[in-house]
Amino acid sequence: MTFPDYEAVGFKEILVKLEGAVVTVTLNRPEQFNTFSIVLSEEIVQAFELFDKDDRVRVVILTAEPTAPAFCAGANITGGWSNLWSPEVEKQGHRAHRDRGGRVSLAIYHCRKITIAAVNGHAAGVGVTGLQLPFDFRFAWQGAKITFPFVRRGIAAEAVSSYLLPQLIGHSRATSLLLSGSTVNPTSHLISSLYHQILPTKEEVYPAAKTFANELAETTSQTGVAYTKALLRHPGESIEENQLRGSWVFSAMTHEGDANEGAQSFMQKRKPKFKDTLSSTKTPWTPWWRLVDLKAKL
Amino acid sequence: MTFPDYEAVGFKEILVKLEGAVVTVTLNRPEQFNTFSIVLSEEIVQAFELFDKDDRVRVVILTAEPTAPAFCAGANITGGWSNLWSPEVEKQGHRAHRDRGGRVSLAIYHCRKITIAAVNGHAAGVGVTGLQLPFDFRFAWQGAKITFPFVRRGIAAEAVSSYLLPQLIGHSRATSLLLSGSTVNPTSHLISSLYHQILPTKEEVYPAAKTFANELAETTSQTGVAYTKALLRHPGESIEENQLRGSWVFSAMTHEGDANEGAQSFMQKRKPKFKDTLSSTKTPWTPWWRLVDLKAKL
Amino acid sequence: MTFPDYEAVGFKEILVKLEGAVVTVTLNRPEQFNTFSIVLSEEIVQAFELFDKDDRVRVVILTAEPTAPAFCAGANITGGWSNLWSPEVEKQGHRAHRDRGGRVSLAIYHCRKITIAAVNGHAAGVGVTGLQLPFDFRFAWQGAKITFPFVRRGIAAEAVSSYLLPQLIGHSRATSLLLSGSTVNPTSHLISSLYHQILPTKEEVYPAAKTFANELAETTSQTGVAYTKALLRHPGESIEENQLRGSWVFSAMTHEGDANEGAQSFMQKRKPKFKDTLSSTKTPWTPWWRLVDLKAKL
Repeated sequence: MTFPDYEAVGFKEILVKLEGAVVTVTLNRPEQFNTFSIVLSEEIVQAFELFDKDDRVRVVILTAEPTAPAFCAGANITGGWSNLWSPEVEKQGHRAHRDRGGRVSLAIYHCRKITIAAVNGHAAGVGVTGLQLPFDFRFAWQGAKITFPFVRRGIAAEAVSSYLLPQLIGHSRATSLLLSGSTVNPTSHLISSLYHQILPTKEEVYPAAKTFANELAETTSQTGVAYTKALLRHPGESIEENQLRGSWVFSAMTHEGDANEGAQSFMQKRKPKFKDTLSSTKTPWTPWWRLVDLKAKL
Repeated sequence: MTFPDYEAVGFKEILVKLEGAVVTVTLNRPEQFNTFSIVLSEEIVQAFELFDKDDRVRVVILTAEPTAPAFCAGANITGGWSNLWSPEVEKQGHRAHRDRGGRVSLAIYHCRKITIAAVNGHAAGVGVTGLQLPFDFRFAWQGAKITFPFVRRGIAAEAVSSYLLPQLIGHSRATSLLLSGSTVNPTSHLISSLYHQILPTKEEVYPAAKTFANELAETTSQTGVAYTKALLRHPGESIEENQLRGSWVFSAMTHEGDANEGAQSFMQKRKPKFKDTLSSTKTPWTPWWRLVDLKAKL
Repeated sequence: MTFPDYEAVGFKEILVKLEGAVVTVTLNRPEQFNTFSIVLSEEIVQAFELFDKDDRVRVVILTAEPTAPAFCAGANITGGWSNLWSPEVEKQGHRAHRDRGGRVSLAIYHCRKITIAAVNGHAAGVGVTGLQLPFDFRFAWQGAKITFPFVRRGIAAEAVSSYLLPQLIGHSRATSLLLSGSTVNPTSHLISSLYHQILPTKEEVYPAAKTFANELAETTSQTGVAYTKALLRHPGESIEENQLRGSWVFSAMTHEGDANEGAQSFMQKRKPKFKDTLSSTKTPWTPWWRLVDLKAKL
């Protein structure tokens, strides 16, 4: 199987760089405060769908240039909301609409690799909901201004944030943030549990995330990660169903090369060299949950 | 549409005062430690059902006079538990019972406006479960004694607290509080994440809540708030269903006056003047969840 | 009804001691770092199934000798993973496997008494997932090294941890812990909300847990505890269903002896003397949830 040359894909509003097993996506619209354009959203979806299938990739980082005035200032609503619609959907009505922020969230959320948001600047709206919540880990600059402004813009929480935010930090904090529209720093008691690590300066955020990513790329199993993510997101409707799903995964995986290498390297007190990949493993990717097709019939 | 004159409704155990778009409910049984009587519970249900439909109301605060000896000391069980039953239900059996605390919780929880509990005194039992958990925001005095005493009174957690408390602060903390029956202060690590803000003195609690309420009343969209609450409480059974519900809401709302005003006021760096109301908006209130009738057949 | 003499059961790898209404289980494989053997797992399942039905027992504590080098070092994988399989299951395939860690978790989780893990040493793998997460309360030594190492061993999160950990502390923290495989102390912001109390020394952990257990054994109702646990674990699919289940429980329990004693002792400002037991109470144990049989057809 051959994998893409990311430099040759022709991305316009993001930069994508693969180093070893870690790929870094840099938002590349600094003059527009990295606002969330149609092109940007489509490129992020495309990139994460590629990473999901690229066996070389173990960890993905999303960040912005630390010199940009914001990590992502949200959607650009200088012309009102109409620039968010495609003409086809406008003709079909509300039921055919698929929120662009949500499409980005889902592409990141469905990526089976470890994902890290390195939030090295201010973030508003979809810059939090779409570009932070669906990640596995969030690193942030302690001075970043974080805002969920929806109720102050006359709309409701978007980009599947009403699903993800309460799951991540509980309904008490999620409700405080989404219904107040207040601006907070990552160290605020309202939001701190969203972040894996909070750094004193903008400049430290990406390096800290990269060091962590490199460590995870060297020490974690690609299949172990993918199935742990699957179990976390689809735990089953009861603890008993979780035991059934988890037991099947456990039995299948412990017969594989990575589990053997995991046990051996542990006993030999050395770093593991995991070789199983999502396309090579004998444990087939077998979703036990209902797959939902979100395409609208136009 | 005309709305009620709250001073003329004739409430006996609560005081209701509308100032601008903020309505304040004050528990008015100080000599009984604001215990939870049948009349009190029915008046709270009636009041929150009115607020839900009253387009003038954007934010509701519940509080007690700071001179009262408690915010709410819970149910009055000096005569045992029998005063909690109606004779009809007693005849019909356990299946016909509808917990009064739970009825209050549900009325508050179903109110589509922003709700704030200003806990300026001690609170026990239903004074926490019914009069704090269903609110969107909780402000508290740091010296308040907070107790979930159920297992120490020979009963189980009531007033839908077994549903709400784990959702709000996670099962680890919820289990600690409900199974120990211990008394804690709002600053305790076991409960602090329940509170939006904790104040040093009783006297500061309501003013802090009122200032916050005034700000939200001026800056938030009534329909944006209502649909954000709906999405938080009914996120769908999967992230994909959330994307479908949220996209419909997003598409409908961005075609409305409040979204237009939200974008314009943001660009013009001025406060918004939101005019859409739940009865006037073109985005109809369209619940996508199963509505459950809780009336017992007697 | 007669109850077992725990000293006479013949446990080999655990010690079981009943004092008053508190039973203490001590892991008894100090020379093997209390690793999780087949015998150990079966004895824990057997013990918790007995405690569930033993009316004398109100609180269960699990701990290790503080002189042991670890609370539980996880599964013993010195011989690879094959020692975790039974020959029958190996013949039947992955679908017939039932994860041993999950079986232990479920036995503890289903025990209707108050359960406390007194973590007085390091814990890895199933020493956290199986021997901490299913408990109601966790006490820990602040110096304990806590690790979820699965992705670093080439496998996925086991022992129903993908179900329990996000419920207990939220998905943000659970994902950080399970996908990084990092080692943390109980005071780490990533895991501290898992613990009811964190103690400075190993030696203080069990005594603190025991004092707490004694207090709960004296002051809590066995039936109140059992139904509160049932409501927390099976809250219903909506808040309305929770109101129906909770109202039935409330109505049934308030007609019982323990509720009467709870009200009377409260009014008389004395400790309660609760006498109802799970086998004697008139409130029958009536599960409203779907019971799932996990036995594999071999």
